[in-house]
Amino acid sequence: MTTLAEAPAPLDPTMIRGAVEARLRAFLDHQEEISGQTPELGLFTGILREQLSAGGKRIRPLFCVTGWHAVRDDPPPDAVWRTAASLELFHAFALIHDDIMDASDTRRGQPTAHRILAALHPDRPDTVGTSAAMLLGDLALGWSYELLHAPGLTDVHLRAVWETFNALRTETLIGQYLDLTGRPAADATVAWRIIRYKTSKYTIERPLQLGARLAGASARQLGALTGYALPLGEAFQLRDDLLGVFGDPAKTGKPTLDDLREGKHTVLTATALRLARPAQRRLLARCLGDPALTEHDAESVRSVLVGTGATNEIEHLIRARRTRALDALDDAPLRPTAVTLLRTLARTVTHRTT
Amino acid sequence: MTTLAEAPAPLDPTMIRGAVEARLRAFLDHQEEISGQTPELGLFTGILREQLSAGGKRIRPLFCVTGWHAVRDDPPPDAVWRTAASLELFHAFALIHDDIMDASDTRRGQPTAHRILAALHPDRPDTVGTSAAMLLGDLALGWSYELLHAPGLTDVHLRAVWETFNALRTETLIGQYLDLTGRPAADATVAWRIIRYKTSKYTIERPLQLGARLAGASARQLGALTGYALPLGEAFQLRDDLLGVFGDPAKTGKPTLDDLREGKHTVLTATALRLARPAQRRLLARCLGDPALTEHDAESVRSVLVGTGATNEIEHLIRARRTRALDALDDAPLRPTAVTLLRTLARTVTHRTT
Repeated sequence: MTTLAEAPAPLDPTMIRGAVEARLRAFLDHQEEISGQTPELGLFTGILREQLSAGGKRIRPLFCVTGWHAVRDDPPPDAVWRTAASLELFHAFALIHDDIMDASDTRRGQPTAHRILAALHPDRPDTVGTSAAMLLGDLALGWSYELLHAPGLTDVHLRAVWETFNALRTETLIGQYLDLTGRPAADATVAWRIIRYKTSKYTIERPLQLGARLAGASARQLGALTGYALPLGEAFQLRDDLLGVFGDPAKTGKPTLDDLREGKHTVLTATALRLARPAQRRLLARCLGDPALTEHDAESVRSVLVGTGATNEIEHLIRARRTRALDALDDAPLRPTAVTLLRTLARTVTHRTT
Repeated sequence: MTTLAEAPAPLDPTMIRGAVEARLRAFLDHQEEISGQTPELGLFTGILREQLSAGGKRIRPLFCVTGWHAVRDDPPPDAVWRTAASLELFHAFALIHDDIMDASDTRRGQPTAHRILAALHPDRPDTVGTSAAMLLGDLALGWSYELLHAPGLTDVHLRAVWETFNALRTETLIGQYLDLTGRPAADATVAWRIIRYKTSKYTIERPLQLGARLAGASARQLGALTGYALPLGEAFQLRDDLLGVFGDPAKTGKPTLDDLREGKHTVLTATALRLARPAQRRLLARCLGDPALTEHDAESVRSVLVGTGATNEIEHLIRARRTRALDALDDAPLRPTAVTLLRTLARTVTHRTT
């Protein structure tokens, strides 16, 4: 006996986040259980647990689960939750290593992993803190693979995600290398490449694809998701760059001087350098990448970013990218409940203040 | 029609190494081929290729393939070669990150990865070199998983190796953490734990198990291999510790001051500290871990290591462990060709000068 088809209930991001977090907790509980004879493993697991519970928008797991729903109306199987949780473990790895590279002291308002580990070894805080955090990141990377493929993820499922997950990993590392080696320049080519690898693909396209592939997505469905993901990722990162300089640290959990002191090569700084008059360009050249940059200097940089019209241009780009992303959903061969959530997410990630 | 069973040909380590290297080359060739649009990936692949071809005894792949032969006489399938090559990629990851942590300039007489990458970024050599090498290591770790499980490794094979490979990864990271945080002390408990995780399990037991499990080893066969692996790993590492202080840098490719300057906590230094008279103990306390240690200081330390009888005691331990490893092979339910090679390897790794 079958019932008449009902419209499926709307997707609830809070419920999805909760389910992913439960999966992560179960995995870490298991690791803690089997770490009986190695207290050091218990220490690492504990720090990872804290890092994972210190907030975070679970944006990649959310896109992964939405990718499933874009193709099928039935509830996602365990493989989808496992893959979504694996993405969050991978992200924990990426953040731990990023924070070492950027020598960041805080993340989401909490001490970073290398700072926590440094505090445990007061005799040699810097070397041990950094090295141990490298190991912790390595462990999280390994665990992201372990979680992805454990009993329960069938061969068919694994085949569906393996290639995409491997691509995601390589793209993220390449993006990070470009980010690391890029210097502020008026030519934004490299800045756009960084966005493509570190955000458009990593945060949106690949997670969506993972969920959709597990659901058996067609090439047309995958194409529609890419058409949405790539411009939205650009809008997302452009918003992030603005928040990195103009955001409220109390909300972002990140000091607004960090990006400027690191001299990150972003589309924002590239645009300002391109539009700047000579005196403005000299000011940017002096301040961007100055590790001793003061709040007063930062105010001058902000004035130039606004004065050149760069921030306006970025806001315009954000709107245009978001529109393009939303347009890609019109008449897309995707399930309506997922499309509704994708539209909401497109607004959330480009209007956010944190 | 069947032929009469012939005694299988002896196993040839050179042939095994060659086959593993061919597998590695094929994997890197493939990665280079698909890196068309990302020249940075080509750069990373090139450095990894150099690191992998700069020598190395391929000891883990050798044990892995021997593990197969310990259980079956027929030639190993592709899954075994893939797993063996994956171990070498994992090892490349471990060395790259280790060299960052130890700030080592050379490895096997060649510049370390972070020094190569530093040279490419003369404007900020230290920060970019270290960070980029972290990424290169991360990539090698990811690739070790990618190589382990690609089409061709069936679900049955994957199930056979997955748990062991994950255990190997966690144990190695924990061993590295202990190594990192350990300080010279007369109590050798931690030094023995470091050996267990970083050498006995990582270098010998787990690789043997991987090959043996792929061949469908019984619990008794796995037990015999463990009985051989654990004491041999101890003998191997004790030899390594002696070479780290007394070896010929021209042969080991590693300066003999590094271990002393780092103040590594080894069974050798623990034994010396335990046996030392007060003046000797003071000298050790002053010199071990002194980053400015001179060759003259090193000579004094060597005199103490010999004078206390510590080196003699270590040589005795090496012989005893090797004997115990060889004894474990007597009447073991393992194929004779593999046992022959295991006996040879036990002598090679404990008598070596490099």
